[in-house]
Amino acid sequence: MLYQVEMTVLLPNDMPPEVASEIKAKEKAYSQDLQRQGIWRHLWRIVGEYRNLSILDCRDNEHLHEVLSGLPLFPWMEIKVTPLCRHPSSIREDDR
Amino acid sequence: MLYQVEMTVLLPNDMPPEVASEIKAKEKAYSQDLQRQGIWRHLWRIVGEYRNLSILDCRDNEHLHEVLSGLPLFPWMEIKVTPLCRHPSSIREDDR
Amino acid sequence: MLYQVEMTVLLPNDMPPEVASEIKAKEKAYSQDLQRQGIWRHLWRIVGEYRNLSILDCRDNEHLHEVLSGLPLFPWMEIKVTPLCRHPSSIREDDR
Amino acid sequence: MLYQVEMTVLLPNDMPPEVASEIKAKEKAYSQDLQRQGIWRHLWRIVGEYRNLSILDCRDNEHLHEVLSGLPLFPWMEIKVTPLCRHPSSIREDDR
Amino acid sequence: MLYQVEMTVLLPNDMPPEVASEIKAKEKAYSQDLQRQGIWRHLWRIVGEYRNLSILDCRDNEHLHEVLSGLPLFPWMEIKVTPLCRHPSSIREDDR
Amino acid sequence: MLYQVEMTVLLPNDMPPEVASEIKAKEKAYSQDLQRQGIWRHLWRIVGEYRNLSILDCRDNEHLHEVLSGLPLFPWMEIKVTPLCRHPSSIREDDR
Amino acid sequence: MLYQVEMTVLLPNDMPPEVASEIKAKEKAYSQDLQRQGIWRHLWRIVGEYRNLSILDCRDNEHLHEVLSGLPLFPWMEIKVTPLCRHPSSIREDDR
Amino acid sequence: MLYQVEMTVLLPNDMPPEVASEIKAKEKAYSQDLQRQGIWRHLWRIVGEYRNLSILDCRDNEHLHEVLSGLPLFPWMEIKVTPLCRHPSSIREDDR
Amino acid sequence: MLYQVEMTVLLPNDMPPEVASEIKAKEKAYSQDLQRQGIWRHLWRIVGEYRNLSILDCRDNEHLHEVLSGLPLFPWMEIKVTPLCRHPSSIREDDR
Amino acid sequence: MLYQVEMTVLLPNDMPPEVASEIKAKEKAYSQDLQRQGIWRHLWRIVGEYRNLSILDCRDNEHLHEVLSGLPLFPWMEIKVTPLCRHPSSIREDDR
Repeated sequence: MLYQVEMTVLLPNDMPPEVASEIKAKEKAYSQDLQRQGIWRHLWRIVGEYRNLSILDCRDNEHLHEVLSGLPLFPWMEIKVTPLCRHPSSIREDDR
Repeated sequence: MLYQVEMTVLLPNDMPPEVASEIKAKEKAYSQDLQRQGIWRHLWRIVGEYRNLSILDCRDNEHLHEVLSGLPLFPWMEIKVTPLCRHPSSIREDDR
Repeated sequence: MLYQVEMTVLLPNDMPPEVASEIKAKEKAYSQDLQRQGIWRHLWRIVGEYRNLSILDCRDNEHLHEVLSGLPLFPWMEIKVTPLCRHPSSIREDDR
Repeated sequence: MLYQVEMTVLLPNDMPPEVASEIKAKEKAYSQDLQRQGIWRHLWRIVGEYRNLSILDCRDNEHLHEVLSGLPLFPWMEIKVTPLCRHPSSIREDDR
Repeated sequence: MLYQVEMTVLLPNDMPPEVASEIKAKEKAYSQDLQRQGIWRHLWRIVGEYRNLSILDCRDNEHLHEVLSGLPLFPWMEIKVTPLCRHPSSIREDDR
Repeated sequence: MLYQVEMTVLLPNDMPPEVASEIKAKEKAYSQDLQRQGIWRHLWRIVGEYRNLSILDCRDNEHLHEVLSGLPLFPWMEIKVTPLCRHPSSIREDDR
Repeated sequence: MLYQVEMTVLLPNDMPPEVASEIKAKEKAYSQDLQRQGIWRHLWRIVGEYRNLSILDCRDNEHLHEVLSGLPLFPWMEIKVTPLCRHPSSIREDDR
Repeated sequence: MLYQVEMTVLLPNDMPPEVASEIKAKEKAYSQDLQRQGIWRHLWRIVGEYRNLSILDCRDNEHLHEVLSGLPLFPWMEIKVTPLCRHPSSIREDDR
Repeated sequence: MLYQVEMTVLLPNDMPPEVASEIKAKEKAYSQDLQRQGIWRHLWRIVGEYRNLSILDCRDNEHLHEVLSGLPLFPWMEIKVTPLCRHPSSIREDDR
Repeated sequence: MLYQVEMTVLLPNDMPPEVASEIKAKEKAYSQDLQRQGIWRHLWRIVGEYRNLSILDCRDNEHLHEVLSGLPLFPWMEIKVTPLCRHPSSIREDDR
């Protein structure tokens, strides 16, 4: 089941650079692991912003919340979730 | 080059149903043709709304405008375009 | 799986009263049928507005869209969907 | 008498983790006590956010304010209250 | 129990003046009757707008909805309800 | 002459509790003095928020600004003023 | 006593041009009469819009509402009123 | 050439009072000097807020930016500029 | 003197196509004439919308209003004007 | 390919002036280098604000993101990107 997720990162000005780097490295590993499992289907950068557009494929709402609240950057993110479904004109079988 | 496009359809109350049906049929054909060409990469329905989330792969801004302004439903749509680029953590080669 | 759904009804000024009455009667029957099936869990009126707050229990996003787009008043509604999940402090077993 | 209440938690970045944990534990106990009394009828997490959707059943506005301002997390919350009433199409006797 | 209610009137351009006058006369009678009963406590015009600020004293949410949906101008109004309660610094006994 | 005033209090997280208590005590005394003089006509708490709805009766705009800028909590308040006047349907002589 | 008033004119598309012209001529006469009396102190066009910025000098809120609701274009205007008072740094005696 | 300028002052909570006083004194002198030169035509306080409405008469956009960015309070201000021009119904020769 | 101008065209659904075509042809001629004179410096289409971004070089605010209110599409446009000035880092002599 | 970019600078109150000066000097050099290369086509100050309007000419979305995220002030900027394309009425060959 697919969801559009928009994540905006808002790190505080006074976070030490090495702390920020460490959290971002964990975030990258976490995200790539979920991409490999097919859960985090798409991940794009929104041009000019510290924000991404993601498509996640989860079993249900519970699963999605688990995935999002586990993000290493979660405490510094604004997240907006929009449920998606198959479009009657779509020809891609897996864009359900 | 990828773009996030959100399209909301606002048909006037007094449009005769057969006119609406004809425009929608043309819209479907137009959209599926672009999907087959690989230009309209993804097309999802936003749950509960007459709105879609689309990912388009165009040569440039000019090309995108040409594609969008050619939509049979264009005169009754609100369209919001967001340019995308590759995310440094993405592992999908073609989500550039 | 639960969703918060807010529905606002916007009937055009020039809709004949008997047409409006007929659509509302169909809406009521449709809604009560879904309530009896346990799909439309809760339905409240927002005080002073032609708007409701609903909790729907659907199999997935697809199912929810099917239910909402089948509403007799759907063409005259503004709908906002918010996915819900179990709260860690909840003590009600079925508020999952 | 029912109210829709949306609570968003905004803890400051510099709150020590053990202080946060203690307040959250108190919040949980407070909330579960009210749930057991039937005052806090429903409590759901909004997916991907540190926000909840709640339905409270209070004697009157005064009672609701007392309950909300007593929340251990109250000083760090944004709260939005919407009064509800029975919907004419509802079939659930206690969704008054 | 008190509520702040803001009512904005939006009559359609093509409503015949005599129809508008008749509805407004009914609205005035309805409002004054509720004022005499002590239910519609205060009614002020917002300067320069076709909008009012009202304070209503109702038994509960249900009662308030009944009063508001019975307004002759209700189909052409935007209504915003805010529940009020006694302020700890108030010295007026009946501003509960 | 009447004004609707909405005051939202935003105390900084790092204000020492005893400082906050002292300012609030002064605010209460200041407010009650103005209520006794008939200038601060009504004062209600908005349910669930650190915000109030007030009706002030001042000689003119200058007088209102003097009263508001003298509030002990003024430096930490967001204030919104709306001028009111008598409503043609009002039956309360002093709701001018 | 001074007020900032912003007026936006929204004439319906189907108003016959001669009707519009007549109303605008009346509006001009009404406005100039009030300017001559010193009540409508300033009147400026906002560049590129069918909107003006006005400063009115009225006895009180009641007087201002009377002046505004008497505008020939009032039924097709959006009006926003902001009460003004003397600024402590002003050196113009009559900008009270 | 006239401009409407709205200035909102947002001093940080931790600015020492004597620093604030010094900046405000400079601001007052700067503003009064420009008023005497006829550049800062009008200056009003918006009732209940730390915000003003000003009318400035500058040679051109460049001149206006120079004046505004020279304000001693500029680093702590939110500024909104709206270009004005003569209104066809105005009778004041210098409200050009 | 430069201004950023954003123009959004909102033609009513019931405007006959030949009327629309005629107005658009006049708009094009009017715009190109001003471009040739160097007044309308830049004109770009915003991708996917019936909206443009323009840079105009006018003698003053009065001149800009004259140019904009003379647009054949003016009655069906939403226009937003932002005054510009030279940026201290700009190296283009005529981007003043 | 052209993009409208609006950049707003938000430096924290506690950034030491010499740090701010150094970053701004780097920003100026970076910007002027890109202007000389023809990538940063136009750069204007928005009057009265710490905000600019820019037109950038980039090879594609990726290139634009690279340019923007390389700005020395990037961590303290709010950036809004709008893709542009040639307007059918434009007569400037290079405003493509």
